[in-house]
Parts: sequence; structure tokens; C-alpha cells
Amino acid sequence: MTIETTDRVAPRYDANGLVTAFVTDATTGEPLMLAHMNADALAATIAGGEAVFWSRSRARLWRKGEESGNVLKVVEIRIDCDQDALWLRCEPAGPACHTGARTCFYRRVEGEKLVVVED
Amino acid sequence: MTIETTDRVAPRYDANGLVTAFVTDATTGEPLMLAHMNADALAATIAGGEAVFWSRSRARLWRKGEESGNVLKVVEIRIDCDQDALWLRCEPAGPACHTGARTCFYRRVEGEKLVVVED
Repeated sequence: MTIETTDRVAPRYDANGLVTAFVTDATTGEPLMLAHMNADALAATIAGGEAVFWSRSRARLWRKGEESGNVLKVVEIRIDCDQDALWLRCEPAGPACHTGARTCFYRRVEGEKLVVVED
Repeated sequence: MTIETTDRVAPRYDANGLVTAFVTDATTGEPLMLAHMNADALAATIAGGEAVFWSRSRARLWRKGEESGNVLKVVEIRIDCDQDALWLRCEPAGPACHTGARTCFYRRVEGEKLVVVED
């Protein structure tokens, strides 16, 4: 069994003990945010059913929405072929972005400029 | 102007000079893969209209599909609030995954097990 075919959860954490995780809205499919998880964050997410990340800036577990209330209820977790990236399909309780935008990806790259495409 | 409100493309590359980039199918919305870009990869992607990443394993620019032919034609590039993650909406010429799967995210995490959900 290779890492691509195994049925065992075996994330390939990087040198900092992290894998990348991005979140889509389970209903609309829209990408909402991207963050990182260590093993504890992934375990807490699976156990609790709400997204928990590792905050690199604060160097601690970060339950998304712990301050804003905008938690992400996890509907499904996918993992990629080489198990170093996660895709979380979630039901957001509110705007995913700390700016108040529905998604963190509210700007389009147009050459050297950014154009706001989502409120 | 903050990094969240600027209209200037100013990716926040990490210590290795990389930002994370994930790809969705521009037609179906399905997430296909996740990889990394350095400044050269992003510039090449914008200039050429096809996704170019930085291969960490090979330590060189990697034009997606350069061997398989399964290139990713870029329809739109989005960047997140703090400019350390990119979302590429693409038209894939074939399966995105090196395993031959349409998406790299073909397995669901169910507790400690992985379940194949996509071919």
C-alpha cells in the first residue's frame, strides 16, 4: 500500500508539524479560507465536528469562530493523494473572513492589480 | 491601505519563498489539487495562462502537465485576505492527479480510515 492507496489516515506533516487545509462551503462549493492544522488540530476537528486550526501567528490551537462566533461545522474532510493537504467541506455560521467578507478570497489578481469581486 | 484592502499584488511568501495555491475546476467548482508557487511560478502562470508551480521535491519550476499533457488553463486567480494563499480557477485538460484521478482529493477521512469517494 502506498500513501496514495492506503486506507489509513497518515498525514505528511511538514517540518513544522503542519498540513495545509482549505475550506469550502458545503452547500455552495465556494472556497472560503485556507489555514493549517497540526495533528492536535485535526484530532480536535474530527472529535468535535467544528474546524480547529493551528494558528501560526499565535502558536496555539485556534478554534475557528472562538471569538467571532463564526464557527465552521464540518460536513466532510477530504485528503489529497500524498496526504499533505486537507479539504474541509463546512457549513459556515457566518462570514469566514476576519474582514467580514463571506470568503477570504474576495480579490481577483489582474496583472499587477487586485480587483474586489466579492463583498 | 492594509494588505487586506490594497489593490496591489503583494504575496506574503513564506521563509522558503512560497505561497500555497489550490486549484478548482472553473466549470464544476470541484477542488482538484493543492501545490505551491514562488514569485517566478506566479509570474509564469500570469504570463502564460497555464498553471506553473514550484516543485518542492524537485526544487524547480513545474509546469503542471509538462509530462502528462494534463495542463491547467487558468481562468481566474484569486488571492486571500492576507495574501498568503492563492485560488486558481482552471480548465483542466485531463485528470489533475498523478494517480489518474480527476481530483487529488479522492478520499474522505472517516475517523482513522480513508474511504475512496472519487475515481
